[in-house]
Amino acid sequence: MIHKFAQSLLVLGGARSGKSRFAQMQAEALPGQLVYIATAQAFDAEMEDRIARHRAVRGARWRTVDAPLALAGAILAESRPDSVVLVDCLTLWASNLLLCEEDVAAAIAGLTAAIANAPGKIIFVTNEVGLGIVPDNALARRFRDIAGDINQAVAACVDSAIFVAAGLPMVLK
Amino acid sequence: MIHKFAQSLLVLGGARSGKSRFAQMQAEALPGQLVYIATAQAFDAEMEDRIARHRAVRGARWRTVDAPLALAGAILAESRPDSVVLVDCLTLWASNLLLCEEDVAAAIAGLTAAIANAPGKIIFVTNEVGLGIVPDNALARRFRDIAGDINQAVAACVDSAIFVAAGLPMVLK
Amino acid sequence: MIHKFAQSLLVLGGARSGKSRFAQMQAEALPGQLVYIATAQAFDAEMEDRIARHRAVRGARWRTVDAPLALAGAILAESRPDSVVLVDCLTLWASNLLLCEEDVAAAIAGLTAAIANAPGKIIFVTNEVGLGIVPDNALARRFRDIAGDINQAVAACVDSAIFVAAGLPMVLK
Repeated sequence: MIHKFAQSLLVLGGARSGKSRFAQMQAEALPGQLVYIATAQAFDAEMEDRIARHRAVRGARWRTVDAPLALAGAILAESRPDSVVLVDCLTLWASNLLLCEEDVAAAIAGLTAAIANAPGKIIFVTNEVGLGIVPDNALARRFRDIAGDINQAVAACVDSAIFVAAGLPMVLK
Repeated sequence: MIHKFAQSLLVLGGARSGKSRFAQMQAEALPGQLVYIATAQAFDAEMEDRIARHRAVRGARWRTVDAPLALAGAILAESRPDSVVLVDCLTLWASNLLLCEEDVAAAIAGLTAAIANAPGKIIFVTNEVGLGIVPDNALARRFRDIAGDINQAVAACVDSAIFVAAGLPMVLK
Repeated sequence: MIHKFAQSLLVLGGARSGKSRFAQMQAEALPGQLVYIATAQAFDAEMEDRIARHRAVRGARWRTVDAPLALAGAILAESRPDSVVLVDCLTLWASNLLLCEEDVAAAIAGLTAAIANAPGKIIFVTNEVGLGIVPDNALARRFRDIAGDINQAVAACVDSAIFVAAGLPMVLK
């Protein structure tokens, strides 16, 4: 299912919900250069495997750029009037910001400015992580707060937002 | 976005989903006295900080009442034909009921009776906590069951219900 | 609320979201023999209690069949042109496949073939388990991946899919 959007789209969903595939399908339905901005960092074999699997399902139209932290800069550097930039995903970015003790509020402000100023289309993939039991440890709760704040900030400034469950979309806006 | 409702509204969402802010926005769009019924109890500094932050974003139109356990009584005591009562949140109330070993079925029956009998508008905020992995410990599973039972019971008797994700609403009813 | 569907329906939701009751209501609104295919295995008293409670709320129209692993076979054996088969739930089936080290891809292929070939109506109940924090242990992450893959595969081949929150439905398709 292709969801029409003007300039920017947020795709929100759970782990293994099909959100990345849904987002890639939206990008591939559009003309122009496709740029995949990956925020993932491979710390172990499980993560490397996951990244490699995701990379394999993307086709030859995609160029991949890594931006574990400097996401706003990467978006502004890569976005062209005729390009589609796909950022996958904001939740790993949240995790990277937390682990590197970055200023989260400043990072969010930079990201929303980049969304406003990027000349081409942008699609964001993100996880909803706040619908389970309150985590035992404080770091996980802090992560959950940061991820939620990023999701709310991006959702407020994109044109369209979709919640994906079991590969199927529900329109948020 | 303001969602029109007749008498009672349930706002359901994850942690840091913007559900409290959404619910407050609905209340503040209405005329009359605004009453905030807080179910939170501050057991530690992190919780105190969270409560203080929430209280600070509410304006001068709000009066705050604490009701960690006796929620039905507080609703009936505070509701007036021209008031808006906001209960934030049912999930902390569920947690308080569990920790104080209250009779949950009786508490739910009392709450739904209060919803039926309150003369003014009521808005409930609640968490969905059942969309993660089954928790390891039995107390967390029991909490998840109680929170789910309360959500279902309240959802069945309110006029309107909204699921909030990333600050954006999806209408349940 | 009764949701019209042609042949097959997926009901997705959290723990204690009312998804099983919603699915049973859909089945009971239809004529014909009602067959309940249970994937649950009682390993302990808590689970036995949960199974007994669920069984008690089903009425005399229901026949119950256990299929903790051989789900596709049970569907094909039980489905008749005038029957309604309710499978509750795919998440416990995912857990059984994982614990018994079954070939998950083959099991999914068998299930989707059974959906395509069953002569009568089928309703599936399943949990969304990927909307919380990433679990600490690798087995839970593997389970979450399998459960998500099953949900996506079934969602892709049923006619209708519903997300239930607090007992209330949102239409996915």
